Amino acid sequence: MEKNLSISVLMDFYGGLLTDKQKEALELYYNQDFSLAEIAQHMDISRQGVRDFIKRGEKQLIEFEDALGLLERFSRISGEFDLIQKDISSLRKIKVSKDADGLISNISESIQRIENDL
Amino acid sequence: MEKNLSISVLMDFYGGLLTDKQKEALELYYNQDFSLAEIAQHMDISRQGVRDFIKRGEKQLIEFEDALGLLERFSRISGEFDLIQKDISSLRKIKVSKDADGLISNISESIQRIENDL
Repeated sequence: MEKNLSISVLMDFYGGLLTDKQKEALELYYNQDFSLAEIAQHMDISRQGVRDFIKRGEKQLIEFEDALGLLERFSRISGEFDLIQKDISSLRKIKVSKDADGLISNISESIQRIENDL
Repeated sequence: MEKNLSISVLMDFYGGLLTDKQKEALELYYNQDFSLAEIAQHMDISRQGVRDFIKRGEKQLIEFEDALGLLERFSRISGEFDLIQKDISSLRKIKVSKDADGLISNISESIQRIENDL
């Protein structure tokens, strides 16, 4: 069974729409790197059951993203943030004035808070 | 039937998860200000049918937000953007140097693109 690396990110967005069992199986498989056998033992179900939870959960996460595109939206935003962070680093180096430095720090902190939220 | 003003915003986020009929009824009711009777005529269904699509759609949108909280997340981000925009306006007034002005313009443009995407 092949791992789809974007599943872990999709779980951050849409995990709340999955069933508890799907979430648990995906979490152990993708974020904690358990094997199917280990998950089966941990959840006290068959390996085939684990596989079904994972496959069904993956399919739903991909359908949510197809319908809503929030990961794509956040990815674009993240790209812009990288640009802003670079511009802010350059601005900091110019060291223009105390007032300006204060404002630049404020912007940098706002962006930090936003990035923690993305 | 009372209008819940956040429904229109929730539709921007989660509309893709509703059925076409729910989306159509909510769209006409919330974004185009049709009456229930007008929607009934437009969709060729009963007024009670319209009411059901709207009520069920509203309920689902609220459940999606309860499960995922994306509107709340975006609202926090928007608040930070307002702060950043203010700081950038202040920075622009300081008129520090041509290099700095260029960087500030870049940041401002990045933020504009992000806000268009939110």
